[in-house]
Amino acid sequence: MRATDIIARKRDGEELSTEEIRWFVAGYTDGSIPDYQAAAWLMAVYLRGMSRRETFDLTVAMAESGDQLDLSDAIPYAVDKHSTGGVGDKVTLVVLPLVAAAGVPVAKMSGRGLGFSGGTLDKLESIAGYRVQLSDEEFLRQVREIGIVLGGQTKSLAPADGQFYALRDVTATVSSLPLIASSIMGKKLAAGANAIVLDVKVGVGAFMHAVDEARDLAQIMVDIGVSAGRMMVALLSDMNQPLGDAVGNALEVREAIETLRGGGPADLRDHCLTIAAHMLRLGRQDSAPDAFDHARAELATLLDSGAGFDKLRALVQAQGGDVRMIDEPDRLPQARLIEAVPASRAGWVSQVHALHVAQATLELGAGREKKEDPIDPAVGVVTHVKVGDRIEAGAPAFTIHANDEGRLARARAELEAALSISSEEVPPLAPFYATIYGDD
Amino acid sequence: MRATDIIARKRDGEELSTEEIRWFVAGYTDGSIPDYQAAAWLMAVYLRGMSRRETFDLTVAMAESGDQLDLSDAIPYAVDKHSTGGVGDKVTLVVLPLVAAAGVPVAKMSGRGLGFSGGTLDKLESIAGYRVQLSDEEFLRQVREIGIVLGGQTKSLAPADGQFYALRDVTATVSSLPLIASSIMGKKLAAGANAIVLDVKVGVGAFMHAVDEARDLAQIMVDIGVSAGRMMVALLSDMNQPLGDAVGNALEVREAIETLRGGGPADLRDHCLTIAAHMLRLGRQDSAPDAFDHARAELATLLDSGAGFDKLRALVQAQGGDVRMIDEPDRLPQARLIEAVPASRAGWVSQVHALHVAQATLELGAGREKKEDPIDPAVGVVTHVKVGDRIEAGAPAFTIHANDEGRLARARAELEAALSISSEEVPPLAPFYATIYGDD
Repeated sequence: MRATDIIARKRDGEELSTEEIRWFVAGYTDGSIPDYQAAAWLMAVYLRGMSRRETFDLTVAMAESGDQLDLSDAIPYAVDKHSTGGVGDKVTLVVLPLVAAAGVPVAKMSGRGLGFSGGTLDKLESIAGYRVQLSDEEFLRQVREIGIVLGGQTKSLAPADGQFYALRDVTATVSSLPLIASSIMGKKLAAGANAIVLDVKVGVGAFMHAVDEARDLAQIMVDIGVSAGRMMVALLSDMNQPLGDAVGNALEVREAIETLRGGGPADLRDHCLTIAAHMLRLGRQDSAPDAFDHARAELATLLDSGAGFDKLRALVQAQGGDVRMIDEPDRLPQARLIEAVPASRAGWVSQVHALHVAQATLELGAGREKKEDPIDPAVGVVTHVKVGDRIEAGAPAFTIHANDEGRLARARAELEAALSISSEEVPPLAPFYATIYGDD
Repeated sequence: MRATDIIARKRDGEELSTEEIRWFVAGYTDGSIPDYQAAAWLMAVYLRGMSRRETFDLTVAMAESGDQLDLSDAIPYAVDKHSTGGVGDKVTLVVLPLVAAAGVPVAKMSGRGLGFSGGTLDKLESIAGYRVQLSDEEFLRQVREIGIVLGGQTKSLAPADGQFYALRDVTATVSSLPLIASSIMGKKLAAGANAIVLDVKVGVGAFMHAVDEARDLAQIMVDIGVSAGRMMVALLSDMNQPLGDAVGNALEVREAIETLRGGGPADLRDHCLTIAAHMLRLGRQDSAPDAFDHARAELATLLDSGAGFDKLRALVQAQGGDVRMIDEPDRLPQARLIEAVPASRAGWVSQVHALHVAQATLELGAGREKKEDPIDPAVGVVTHVKVGDRIEAGAPAFTIHANDEGRLARARAELEAALSISSEEVPPLAPFYATIYGDD
């Protein structure tokens, strides 16, 4: 086989064979195919697309490009979740302890934030001492012992995806459905789960801006999972406004703790219960018609009883984190400057623009533009309104947590642009747009 | 400006600005834009195309990427020619001396052969001692002194084109009209001609297989030249069968000499007179309605008088070549094994497949698959028939000139595949399909 022939076939819109896709991914991973040939191929894939079969083959090639985690010794039936990334998305911090508290063990590898999208690892690291890098042995031992583990992805897992992603980032080939789907699902397949719940975000604060596009991506990923013998559920959820109130690392940990203690913002609690209920019924392989409703009710009890909180505490302790920060969230990193952004007039909130809020938190130093940027765990934004809420002139719409006056001023400008107020009543946004099942 | 933004805009089918194209070409040439970004951009250009304005800007950026030859001191009005490459194309060896003999000075930089397409420099080098690498000073002095110079392109001329071409070759992005057009015309503009005659080959032995596609390419190149203030003519000429009889370096030099002495194959003589007549009328800036016919008649006389031959002799002498090889072509490198390939049956020749003939000469060692391959000047093929000719069973259709038994056998097999004989009469192929003028 020759790389140029494979590039030319995709360039001409032909369907590549399983062999060709495997050969190309293996060649790029081992360095025998150079970056420039992979770049031309990625652009051809971007513009010509891939069939479901090709996308599945690409996913499997990604998953098989390195080590594959075998969870079967530690967990009889493993359930995982993945969010395509949004603003204020601290759902993993709530649902993992909650599902574990219900008796379904969870072993998850999370990522770091980049651009407007926050990362679970960064949030966890605002807890002093929390270790995200575990050896495979530590990872498996911990889930066996306490039923929950939450660490970073090891470099040996789906290394092809890491290489391709870095190249896509600098060749304008990120936003391609088959490339996104195979990147996400390649890692998920390699991470060893039997069932996967996908939280596909759609809106101005997500990679996907349109519901139809997000639905296509979700369906492709569900199909890949089913083809690979996994049980799948994908939820299309709103990301036009932030999820919950807090955006920023320590602020989000605090909100997750509140939610695990039975409080927290209503939209976040609702979102977490929905994701967790799907994980629970899949993890229990419960196919009864009312399995979801039963799971949701049970999980609501575990939130209110504090059982989910106890599991988070056990997780933090096991991974070396300072549990006093969990018990007394005031001990979490705190910003020096705290300032409200009031509404300029009265009316109904018609927009809390998630991307502007994310830009504000980036301005404050809560995220990173480039992989190597440092982050400030204390800073961020707390939103006080949701689309559809009534607000009075001068009432606080946001609270900024900053460590620098200049950054605070820039964040304030972004937040003023984020908020739209209508003189007429506005309906609230739907939390979910669709659910796609691949678990028959 | 950011390379990824420019790649993304072309990816999305947008028109790039002059500034963006210049910045990208300059960045790739100076190494600040890496191969992988240029590769993704080339694939986006391949699949999304370029407007005439973009193609023109790309051409100018190529031309301006290095030194530009200023011929104005040496030649008041310079005329150049370019062929897109074919099989048996020794036209430059005939028309350059011929046009110079008519009093229009010619200073041309030629290329080497690659794949099925032969190169003028390789042909010239079958003349012992002929120097193709001249300094700019030598180049200009020679045309001033004897009215003709024919050397290789210097590396400092349109270096961006060399870099982009090498990358296109390994990323399946060669066959794109804007990329081909800007590559050819970038070099031609940098080489300093005021008027350019393009010989665009079409057929199985050319890069362009279809007349419509070749016409598009020719029109794009004519438009670029006109936009750059050049006088232009493009001819679409047949390359389904070899041009003339000889294919192979020394064999083609011998045929060029015969043609310059008033003999040679009829199709070659006709082709050379047509190209040369356009060069002559452009070089003389003669816009009279009968300028072409007058020029053609004058040039025919110069072929028959041997004036063109004398100019070739002067050229070879000036560039250090052994003129005895010109005076007595039997002194040119000769192959050891000479063998005829007879027709298997009687009938009318319906195909002398140029690509198969080219493959046969490649098998013999007359060309190169890769840039660094050595070539054998002596070997090649002489064809004895044209499409439409009557041939009898057992009559020689080809003569193979070889230096190796095994290679001879492989060439014979290719030549047998090249020849098709019909039991019904077949019309001859048209030498030219169209002429496109850009010299109003």
